[in-house]
Amino acid sequence: MNTLTGVGVSPGIGFGPAYVLAVQESLVPAPDARHGGDAGAERDRATRALEQVAADLEERGIRTGGEAREILNAQAMMARDPGLAVEVAVLIDDSGATAARAVYEAFGRYRELLAGAGGYLGERVADLDDVRDRAVAVLEGLRMPGVPDHPDHADHTARPYVLIARDLAPADTATLSRDVVSAFVIEQGGPTSHTAILARAMGVPAVVACPGATSIEPGTPVLVDGSSGLVRPAPSEAEVAEATNAAAARKAVLAAASGPGATSDGHAVPLLANIGGPGDVASALEHGAEGIGLYRTEFLFLDRATAPSGQEQESAYLEVLNAFPGGRVIVRTLDAGADKPLAFLPPRGEEPNPALGERGLRLFKINPEIMNEQLGALARAAAQSSAKLQVMAPMVATAEEAAWFVAACGDAGLPSAGVMIEIPSAALRASDLAAEADFLSIGTNDLAQYTFAADRQLGALTMLQDAWQPALLDLIALAAAGAVGRGKSCGVCGEAAGDPVLACVLVGLGVTSLSMAPPALPAVRAALSRHDREQCVLAAQAARAAISPQEARTAARSHLPGLAGLAL
Amino acid sequence: MNTLTGVGVSPGIGFGPAYVLAVQESLVPAPDARHGGDAGAERDRATRALEQVAADLEERGIRTGGEAREILNAQAMMARDPGLAVEVAVLIDDSGATAARAVYEAFGRYRELLAGAGGYLGERVADLDDVRDRAVAVLEGLRMPGVPDHPDHADHTARPYVLIARDLAPADTATLSRDVVSAFVIEQGGPTSHTAILARAMGVPAVVACPGATSIEPGTPVLVDGSSGLVRPAPSEAEVAEATNAAAARKAVLAAASGPGATSDGHAVPLLANIGGPGDVASALEHGAEGIGLYRTEFLFLDRATAPSGQEQESAYLEVLNAFPGGRVIVRTLDAGADKPLAFLPPRGEEPNPALGERGLRLFKINPEIMNEQLGALARAAAQSSAKLQVMAPMVATAEEAAWFVAACGDAGLPSAGVMIEIPSAALRASDLAAEADFLSIGTNDLAQYTFAADRQLGALTMLQDAWQPALLDLIALAAAGAVGRGKSCGVCGEAAGDPVLACVLVGLGVTSLSMAPPALPAVRAALSRHDREQCVLAAQAARAAISPQEARTAARSHLPGLAGLAL
Repeated sequence: MNTLTGVGVSPGIGFGPAYVLAVQESLVPAPDARHGGDAGAERDRATRALEQVAADLEERGIRTGGEAREILNAQAMMARDPGLAVEVAVLIDDSGATAARAVYEAFGRYRELLAGAGGYLGERVADLDDVRDRAVAVLEGLRMPGVPDHPDHADHTARPYVLIARDLAPADTATLSRDVVSAFVIEQGGPTSHTAILARAMGVPAVVACPGATSIEPGTPVLVDGSSGLVRPAPSEAEVAEATNAAAARKAVLAAASGPGATSDGHAVPLLANIGGPGDVASALEHGAEGIGLYRTEFLFLDRATAPSGQEQESAYLEVLNAFPGGRVIVRTLDAGADKPLAFLPPRGEEPNPALGERGLRLFKINPEIMNEQLGALARAAAQSSAKLQVMAPMVATAEEAAWFVAACGDAGLPSAGVMIEIPSAALRASDLAAEADFLSIGTNDLAQYTFAADRQLGALTMLQDAWQPALLDLIALAAAGAVGRGKSCGVCGEAAGDPVLACVLVGLGVTSLSMAPPALPAVRAALSRHDREQCVLAAQAARAAISPQEARTAARSHLPGLAGLAL
Repeated sequence: MNTLTGVGVSPGIGFGPAYVLAVQESLVPAPDARHGGDAGAERDRATRALEQVAADLEERGIRTGGEAREILNAQAMMARDPGLAVEVAVLIDDSGATAARAVYEAFGRYRELLAGAGGYLGERVADLDDVRDRAVAVLEGLRMPGVPDHPDHADHTARPYVLIARDLAPADTATLSRDVVSAFVIEQGGPTSHTAILARAMGVPAVVACPGATSIEPGTPVLVDGSSGLVRPAPSEAEVAEATNAAAARKAVLAAASGPGATSDGHAVPLLANIGGPGDVASALEHGAEGIGLYRTEFLFLDRATAPSGQEQESAYLEVLNAFPGGRVIVRTLDAGADKPLAFLPPRGEEPNPALGERGLRLFKINPEIMNEQLGALARAAAQSSAKLQVMAPMVATAEEAAWFVAACGDAGLPSAGVMIEIPSAALRASDLAAEADFLSIGTNDLAQYTFAADRQLGALTMLQDAWQPALLDLIALAAAGAVGRGKSCGVCGEAAGDPVLACVLVGLGVTSLSMAPPALPAVRAALSRHDREQCVLAAQAARAAISPQEARTAARSHLPGLAGLAL
C-alpha cells in the first residue's frame, strides 16, 4: 500500500499497529417514528436524555482536565441549548415525533448551519454530531458511539497503537493517553479540529484530512510523521530506523541546550511557561521552565455556580508558587467575559461582539469585589512562599486603567503589578502604561486579533493572525521600547514566543523574557543559544522591513544561520 | 412651572406650543385570554399580524428613506424573528393562549433581556415595545399606537409645535418633519436612542431623559435648547429673544466663513460631505461641501433579494457625480457583512464576533463578481461626468489587500483607487499601503473600535471610543505621515472630522481633507478659518503629549484661541 498524505497537526514520529475504528453509521431514527400520544412524557424523555449526555461529557471533562475539559464542557452546553429544547418540544407536540426523532431533526438544523459555514465552525460539526448520536443512543437504548472504553485488541494486542478513524469525537480522544496511542490518523477534520488540539496537548503525533486512511488493514504496522503529514503503511525497517533516528537526533540537539535561556553571547532571556492550573506545573518543570510567565486563573472560576472562596484560591496559587522556590511566577487575574462567561456573574446584556465587549479588566471595574478577593488571596499566598509573585491584568487599554489596577494591587499588599499588552492602544501607549505598571507582558494572540480586526476563531482569516505580520512586529517593538524607556521589563506570553525563529526576532525587538507552552521550551532555548544578540537585532530589523509575513520570515531566517542544525 | 433639565442630543433652539402625546398604556391582553380551540387558525392570525406590522414599518421606511429606513427595517426584522414565531406557536399550542396574548408574552422574554442589558441595547427596548404594541393592536382591532398621522390640534393649531412624549417610536419620529415639529422633548431614552439619532438627521433640536416633561400643560409655549438640554415652559419674551439671538449670532459667525476650507494662512483643507445616497446631495450642497468624501453605497445592496444591476448602480453613482461638476466624489465600495448582512449573499457561517469577521473587502475576496460589477458601473458613470471620481475599499488590513483592490480598479478602468484606514494594522503600515494606493482615508469610528477593542455599539465603553484618545491620535499621525512620505493624500471621513476643535488637530496631525455629515461643515469651516497651520500643529502636538482624552482636549484648546468666538 502506498504512502498516504494528510495534514500534520501535531509533530513527532509515531509507529505501531493500525487500530482502525469501524465506520459507524449515524444513528438515524426512522423519519416516521411517532410517539404513543403522551407528548408531555415524550418531552420529558428527551430532556432527560440530553441532560444525561451533558452530565456524562462534563464528567469525562473533569477526569481529563486541561484543554479537553473546556472542549467537553462546550459540547455539554450544546446538549443543554435552550433553543434546541424548544425545537425538540415543538417537534414532539406538533408532529408527534418520538423523542429520538425530534432530537435528530432539531440537531439537523444546527448542523446545516455549521457545515455551510466551513472553516473553524465547520470543524465543530463533528462535535455536534457526537452529541446528537449520544442522545439518540440513550433514547434508543443503543451502545454509545466512539472508541470503546475497553477496546477489544484481539488482532493487535500490541500497544501503543496508531488509532485510525474517519473522525473522532473529543470525548473519545480526551480519555485516551500516550501509553495507549502512539499516533492519530484521521480521514476528516482540519488543523483546528478538536482532535488536532487535543493531540497536541497530549504530545501525540497526529495527521488529519488524510483520505484513504480507514482502508488500511487493521494490525498493519504504520509509520506516522505528524510534521510532514505522511502516513506510511508497512514501512521497511530502514524507513522506521531513519525516521526514528531523525527524531532522536533533533531530541539530542534540543537536550544539548540546557540551563537558563540566553543568547550565545550571554544576554539572558528568561524562558518561562504558560500554565492553566497547578496540574501543568509538572510539564513546566520537566521542560526546564525558569518560572511561570502566564498562570491563567480562569479554571478556578468557570463552570461554577458561585465564586471560589479566597481560601480555595489561596491554595491554588500557593501550590504553583511552591513549585518555583526563589523563582518568578506571573499570575494573570481573571480573564472572563466574552467567550468565557461566568455562571455566577452573567454579562450585563447581550454583546454583539463579545471579543470587543466587557471582558477582562472591564469586568473587574463593574465587580471590584471579585478583583479584591482575588488580589487578597494572591497576597496571602505570596506571603507564605519564597517565589517572586507578579500579578498582571488582562484587557488593559489605557494608562488610566493601568493606574487603577496597580493601585488595587498596592492596596492588597502585592509587590509587583503589571499589565498585559493585548490591545493596540496599550502597545501604542506602552510608555504611558509602563509609567504606571511594574512590568508589561505582550499577549500576541489577542493583540493580532485586534490589530488586524480578524477573529481568532475564524479559520478563513488565519493569514491575518500570522504573528509574523510586520504590523504586529511594529507594535511589539513599540511596546518593548516603551517599557525600556521607563526601565521596566516587557515579556511575551502569546503563542509567538514558542516559535524558535520568531523567539530570536522577539529578543531582537527588545523583548526581555519569553513564556510559552512547556513543550516548546527546549527548541526555543536551543535557537537562542545558537545566536548572539546582534544577530537577533538584525533579524528583527529585516523582518520589520518586509511587507508581508512570508517575506518577514524569510528575511529573519537569513540572519539566523544556527537554525539549520535545528531542523525546524 | 420651573425649567426642566434633560440631555441635549440634537443641538439648536426650538420654540413652539407643547403638543403632549397622551401617555398610552401598553396594550396588555388579559393573562387568561384563551382561543376557541383551533390552534392552527390562531397561529395563522399571529403570523399574519406580525407580517402586516413588518410590511407597514418597511413601507414607512421607504417613504422616509435615509437613516430612518435602516432603523425601521431593523424593527421589521424584529417582527419577523423566527425564534419569536416559534415561541408564539408554542404558547398558542401548549397554553391555548390567544394570538394577542402569545405575541405579548413572547416579546416579553426578549424585552427582559434587552432591558437588563442597559446601554445601547437597553435603548432598543422602546423599538421592541413598539413592534409588540403594533402587533397586538392589529390582533385586537385597536388603533395603532403613537402619533396620529393627522393629529387633532384643536388646542394649539400653531405649527411647528414642540412634541413632548414619554417615549417615541422611530416609526413615529421618522414620518414627522421640520415643518411640523420645532423640537422633541422625551422623558425617557438616551443619547443613542433612535429618537436622538433621527432628530439629528432631521436637524430638529431634541432633549431626552427629561423627567416631568409630560406634565407640561398642552398648548403651553416651550423653549427648548438641544445643546444644554434645558426645557423652559412659558418663557418670558426676553428669554426667547436671548436664546434666538444667540442662535442667530452663532449662525452669523458660521455664515461669515464661506468658500473652500482653509486655515487662516491659506493652507487649503478641502471640506467634503459624507452621504448615504443621492438623497443626501441637497444637504451637502446647502452646507457648502466642496465634494463628497464618503459616498456609502450600501443603500443599493441592503434589503434586496438580488444584487442591484450594473445599470441601476450606474444611475445612482451618476446622479451624485453630476451634482459636483469638476469636483471630487469619493465612493466607498460595498461595506457589507457583520451587522449589515446581504440577503442575496448570506455569511458563510455564524460569526462569533461579526465586527472581526468577513466584512468589507473580505467579502469581495470571496465574491469578486460583485466587486467587479460595482467597479464597472462606477467606471461607466465616471466616463459620463466631469466630476473626479475616486474609489476606495473598506476594511483593508494589509498592503497585499490594497494592491489586490487597486489592481481590480485598474482593470475596470478607474483612474484613482484608495483604501480606508480603519484597522490598526493599516494605520501602522500606512506607508506600505500608500505605496500601492492612490490615496488614504481614515475612518475614525471603526479605527477607534479596533484600537481599543471596544464595541461601537456598547454604551458602557463610550470612553474608549472617544476620538480624543491619544492612542487614536498617534495612529492618525502615523497614517498621515505614511501617505505624505509617498506623496499621497490622507483624509479623515469619520465622525471626528465634524468636531470643529478636533478638525484643527487633525489638520495639525497632517490630514489633508475632512469629510463629515453636511450640517457639521459650517462650524468646521469657521474653526479652520480662525487659526493658522502652525497653531493647528501645536494643538496636535499638545494633544498627543497628553495621556487621556480629557487632557488632550484641554491641551489642544489652549492653542486654538479663535474657538472662543464660536461658542462651541
